[in-house]
Amino acid sequence: MSDYEPITWIDGHLRLLDQRRLPQEVVYLDYWEAEAVADAIRTMVVRGAPAIGIAAAYGMALAAFQSASYGVSQALDALERAAKCLRQTRPTAVNLSWALDRVLAKARTAETLDTETWCTVVLEEAHRILEEERQSNLRMGEYALALVPDGARILHHCNTGPLATGGYGTALRVAIAAHQAGKHVHVYVDETRPRLQGARLTAWELQQYGVPHTVIVDGAAAYFMRTVGINLCVVGCDRVAANGDTANKIGTYQLALAAHAHGIPFYVVGPTSSIDLSVASGDLIEIEMRPPEEVTHILGQRMVPEGSVAANPAFDVTPARYITAIVTERGIVWPPFSENLIRIVGSSDVS
Amino acid sequence: MSDYEPITWIDGHLRLLDQRRLPQEVVYLDYWEAEAVADAIRTMVVRGAPAIGIAAAYGMALAAFQSASYGVSQALDALERAAKCLRQTRPTAVNLSWALDRVLAKARTAETLDTETWCTVVLEEAHRILEEERQSNLRMGEYALALVPDGARILHHCNTGPLATGGYGTALRVAIAAHQAGKHVHVYVDETRPRLQGARLTAWELQQYGVPHTVIVDGAAAYFMRTVGINLCVVGCDRVAANGDTANKIGTYQLALAAHAHGIPFYVVGPTSSIDLSVASGDLIEIEMRPPEEVTHILGQRMVPEGSVAANPAFDVTPARYITAIVTERGIVWPPFSENLIRIVGSSDVS
Repeated sequence: MSDYEPITWIDGHLRLLDQRRLPQEVVYLDYWEAEAVADAIRTMVVRGAPAIGIAAAYGMALAAFQSASYGVSQALDALERAAKCLRQTRPTAVNLSWALDRVLAKARTAETLDTETWCTVVLEEAHRILEEERQSNLRMGEYALALVPDGARILHHCNTGPLATGGYGTALRVAIAAHQAGKHVHVYVDETRPRLQGARLTAWELQQYGVPHTVIVDGAAAYFMRTVGINLCVVGCDRVAANGDTANKIGTYQLALAAHAHGIPFYVVGPTSSIDLSVASGDLIEIEMRPPEEVTHILGQRMVPEGSVAANPAFDVTPARYITAIVTERGIVWPPFSENLIRIVGSSDVS
Repeated sequence: MSDYEPITWIDGHLRLLDQRRLPQEVVYLDYWEAEAVADAIRTMVVRGAPAIGIAAAYGMALAAFQSASYGVSQALDALERAAKCLRQTRPTAVNLSWALDRVLAKARTAETLDTETWCTVVLEEAHRILEEERQSNLRMGEYALALVPDGARILHHCNTGPLATGGYGTALRVAIAAHQAGKHVHVYVDETRPRLQGARLTAWELQQYGVPHTVIVDGAAAYFMRTVGINLCVVGCDRVAANGDTANKIGTYQLALAAHAHGIPFYVVGPTSSIDLSVASGDLIEIEMRPPEEVTHILGQRMVPEGSVAANPAFDVTPARYITAIVTERGIVWPPFSENLIRIVGSSDVS
């Protein structure tokens, strides 16, 4: 673990590292209410599929403490309302719903306890989700080690480090773990327009871990595949459908097509909580359309002329056939994904 | 023609529309010396392969007038020096060398004339290059009309409008000509990082001509191919090798791979002056590496953390097999390009 903490519970409240202000400033924001946490997710103070799940779980804990004085029964109603509010913030990542449902289920089974104990049970579930994510990230890194040759040039899209997960990271963990294992790796960092999570966050995180890297514009990935040669691509996932189709940050699909054309392995890395077997294929995953201003404006200044419009899908879907394997905390899932994803989700954690 | 003039000769000097300040401001800059024109090309006051060729030709005219008082023989030496200075500004686009060589050759054949007439001959050659570009652009648009179905969604990368050519545009002319011919087209405009020529310039030019358009981040092109459906891609070219491999703005190759995966026609549009038969394949084309600050900084503010580096290739090479056809002012060139490019370059203009 590095010495920055994207998500912490401290003195009875939630503290988030404001990811919008990195790398210029390291600023922590404090949250005491579920509604404020929902706002933090919506405005991307915290982002990354696993991280928003964890933040939302702590948002539920805040809701429990907020309403505890009314007794558990009424507090449960408040928790349901908080879950609804948090769930609506961002539609694509399934980890959000997964974490909310898990905390809600725990709160319901603890309904007969006294309010103080009940609140502790809710909070402990949030703690557990964070702790599991940490262990999960470490295992992904271990499983993926075999996929990374010494001297590998790794192409990475968006941000999937500790900032995105609250733990040790998913796809970026693969590069960091290989580096820590003594392999010489170099990460090509897609800047990831429009919000520049790669340029701002991934580069910053790789610096914290001392991993050599080079930032490039998104459109240059295929150039580097064709010239210096890329050994593997690693990306995270916001939702994996039952057939392996994967929703992830916009630009992922285009990168996968380029990797496919060059015969470069393309790995999706994420926890099993990102797998949504209830969705048959990627075409059924809702893609969040974010404000056009994220494209038309940079640093508050309009770049696109007044009167021109922009479209801003935050995610895209990469069809399973372009994905070499999906690395989870329970092992590496290879095609055929339709069979093997069911198997991995049905299996229990191996520690 | 719209009512903006990217490159004009006025009152004995060169006037350039400063493309770095669009779309926020429409500012014209005046040039009286070849060295200053070289600087304008280097710093991208003027950019776009055909446009820098034309600007350089006028730079030669300025050099002629500057040195005319020493007599033609010495002025010719000055012209050689100016050509060398202008040629070194940007390495990838072949139009620059092509235009310089053409003006130089003309100046040499006119060596026996009196200095005043000689200067006029040099200037007239620059005028001719601009006028030919205009006519050439119109013909490209006409040839390409048959390639654009009514209702077409056209994906366009970088900027290839009048700003890039000094005339009516190349790839963007295809969309504008189809629109003017009454076809209902919609242009998806790649913003084109790092310099945002698409977001800033192409959107602005499409507004001038009233062509419906939507700006997207470069990584979203494949998403739109897969969702709304794109009918054709059009891009310009900085240099076409003898085998059809094409150097163009960074991101073009990645776009071509996405188009190929979707079976979408991918058209390169440019004048025959962009075809360089002396270069056997794209691997031999020098790719300009521009300052990393174009990636790390936006509007003067550092986005990538201090200590992280960026790589900034300004162009990439799209192998010929991903190119459906090359539209020139002499007609549409289809594969096999190795045979058909020789034929079109060897042919004379058909008016």
